[in-house]
Amino acid sequence: MDAIDVIRAKRDGHALSNEQIDWVIDAYTRGAVAEEQMSSLAMAILLNGMTRAEIGRWTAAMIASGERMDFSSLRRPTTDKHSTGGVGDKITLPLAPLVAACGAAVPQLSGRGLGHTGGTLDKLESIPGWRASLSNTEMLEVLDTAGAVICAAGSGLAPADRKLYALRDVTGTVESIPLIASSIMSKKIAEGTGALVLDVKVGSGAFMKTVEDARELAETMVAIGTDHGVKTVALLTAMDRPLGRAVGNAVEVAESVEVLAGGGPEDVVELTVRLAREMLDAAGITGKDPADALRDGSAMDHWRRMITAQGGDPDAPLPQAPETHTVTAPSTGVLSKLDAFGVGVAAWRLGAGRARKEDPVSAGAGVICHAKPGDQVTEGQPLLTLHADDPSRFDRALEALDGAIEIGPAPSNLLPLVIDRLS
Amino acid sequence: MDAIDVIRAKRDGHALSNEQIDWVIDAYTRGAVAEEQMSSLAMAILLNGMTRAEIGRWTAAMIASGERMDFSSLRRPTTDKHSTGGVGDKITLPLAPLVAACGAAVPQLSGRGLGHTGGTLDKLESIPGWRASLSNTEMLEVLDTAGAVICAAGSGLAPADRKLYALRDVTGTVESIPLIASSIMSKKIAEGTGALVLDVKVGSGAFMKTVEDARELAETMVAIGTDHGVKTVALLTAMDRPLGRAVGNAVEVAESVEVLAGGGPEDVVELTVRLAREMLDAAGITGKDPADALRDGSAMDHWRRMITAQGGDPDAPLPQAPETHTVTAPSTGVLSKLDAFGVGVAAWRLGAGRARKEDPVSAGAGVICHAKPGDQVTEGQPLLTLHADDPSRFDRALEALDGAIEIGPAPSNLLPLVIDRLS
Repeated sequence: MDAIDVIRAKRDGHALSNEQIDWVIDAYTRGAVAEEQMSSLAMAILLNGMTRAEIGRWTAAMIASGERMDFSSLRRPTTDKHSTGGVGDKITLPLAPLVAACGAAVPQLSGRGLGHTGGTLDKLESIPGWRASLSNTEMLEVLDTAGAVICAAGSGLAPADRKLYALRDVTGTVESIPLIASSIMSKKIAEGTGALVLDVKVGSGAFMKTVEDARELAETMVAIGTDHGVKTVALLTAMDRPLGRAVGNAVEVAESVEVLAGGGPEDVVELTVRLAREMLDAAGITGKDPADALRDGSAMDHWRRMITAQGGDPDAPLPQAPETHTVTAPSTGVLSKLDAFGVGVAAWRLGAGRARKEDPVSAGAGVICHAKPGDQVTEGQPLLTLHADDPSRFDRALEALDGAIEIGPAPSNLLPLVIDRLS
Repeated sequence: MDAIDVIRAKRDGHALSNEQIDWVIDAYTRGAVAEEQMSSLAMAILLNGMTRAEIGRWTAAMIASGERMDFSSLRRPTTDKHSTGGVGDKITLPLAPLVAACGAAVPQLSGRGLGHTGGTLDKLESIPGWRASLSNTEMLEVLDTAGAVICAAGSGLAPADRKLYALRDVTGTVESIPLIASSIMSKKIAEGTGALVLDVKVGSGAFMKTVEDARELAETMVAIGTDHGVKTVALLTAMDRPLGRAVGNAVEVAESVEVLAGGGPEDVVELTVRLAREMLDAAGITGKDPADALRDGSAMDHWRRMITAQGGDPDAPLPQAPETHTVTAPSTGVLSKLDAFGVGVAAWRLGAGRARKEDPVSAGAGVICHAKPGDQVTEGQPLLTLHADDPSRFDRALEALDGAIEIGPAPSNLLPLVIDRLS
């Protein structure tokens, strides 16, 4: 087998054979296929596509490149959620302990933010003492103690995907549905969960800008999960405006704690409860209403246990950024647009996100939204508060908000929070 | 400027701006754009194409990545030929001294063979003592003495192309007309020739398998040359069967010397004279018939001076391969097919070519064709003689000839030697 033959086959519009896929993923993982060869193959895949059979085999080959986790020793069924990433999407934080409180085990391997979407681990690291990196033994201990664990994936899980993801990031080959779907699903299947709920975001703040693209990605991932024996459900949800009111790291932890305390923004609560129901259903757990677990404090109890078990202090004050800047309503009317991408880029430039993998993030930086699309606003009232460690950050953040806010007679074509469900 | 933005633009079907092209070629030459980034860009160019304006700018940027040669100190007009490569294509060897004998200066920077097509420098290196690498000063001295020089391009000429060519070779991105055209033309324009005749080969033994593809490549190159002020003409010529009777290194030198002595195979003589007329026309030299210079010995005289000036002994016996194997006619009739690709691969496997850049070539290995398509043959008569240093080479060479030879009632759809002319 030869890398150039595989590249040429895909370049010329043919489907790759099982043997070609197995060989190229294994050889790439071993370093026998060079980075520049995989990047031209990735571009050919992006432009010429892959069949369902090719995507399934590609995913299986990436899983086979590393170890698989095994949670069969737990007494509870495992269930997991994955979001394709959005602005203000802190749902994993209240969701994992909530689903644990309802009787499932939630082994949530999460990532860091890159670009304008935040990372779950970056958010949790704003809690003093909290550790993202756990050994497999520690992970099982936290799961046993708290029913849920949120931590970094070990380097042994789907190493082919780890290598390919870093390559795609610098070669303009991220936006390929087959490559996105196989990347997400290889990690989730290798992680060994029995059930999986996918939250596929749609809109300016998401990877998928249109419902059509999001549906294709969701269908592809549901097919891969089903083919691998994982009960998989996908929701398409709105990411044309930020989720909740807080966008950043510590500010999103604070909002998550509000939700666990029975309060919090309506959209965050609604989506958290909806996803919890889907996760419990997929895991075969019946007779528990997650809304009750928010009301009765059991979800908060599991949160506190989970944070404590990972070295964090759930009672410690969260970091705050010392500098603030207020954006006010330019006129009176209804807030018709608060663009997710604009707000996400603003938070990123304020210091909440990173441009390169090795960059640090600011725990306190971010954006608080005082109004959401559909709200009546009065000229001069605060719409957004920007938080940063350094006031020099405000200028470029404000540039990102240019065109992101519109006041009009009524919100025009906002997406419903939950657009569709696929299983 | 950012490599990913440039890649995305081409990936998404847009034309690259002048600024994007200048930046990406310069940054790639400096190492600021990584190999894996250039390879995904090359695949996007291969699949999405480039406009005439993009190709012209891409070529100009590759020229600007290095030095340009200057032959304005010579008293004669410069004229050059480039072939896109074929099987048995030794035309440069008799052509350069022939055109010099007619009054032009021929600075012929040539390459080595890779794959099934031979390299001019590999052929000439079978002459004892001959050197391919010359300094710029030596090159001018040979040109002054002999009117022609055939040597390796210095590393300072279009270094961006040198780097990109090596990358395309291993990433499945060779077969792109914009990239092939800009690669050839950047070297030829940087070389500083005033006039250029392109011999674009068509058929199984060529890069371009169809007349349509060859015409597109030829038109693209003529446009680039014209845009850069170089008088450029292209011929489309046949490469469905080998050119001449000899395919290899020393055997092709021997055939070239026959042509210079006034003999040689009809097709080699015809194409050499035709290309010489085009080169002289393009250089503005009139009143000289190259056919006379073959007859009167002046072309041979320039050959001997050129070889001697580069350290070679034109009277030394050429290397011969000690082992031979004869392929005979399987039946009586007309030789209707002698496939250029099959013969080229056979010669390559006999040792005349190299699989990797660092491989050595055998001077004596190759194929001699005793009959050409259209010739009457009798069952059992010799059709080909294979030459190799080691008899273990014959089996794989014979495999390459499987299906390459057909005896029939008459040659079916052979291409005319000169198919078309573009200027």
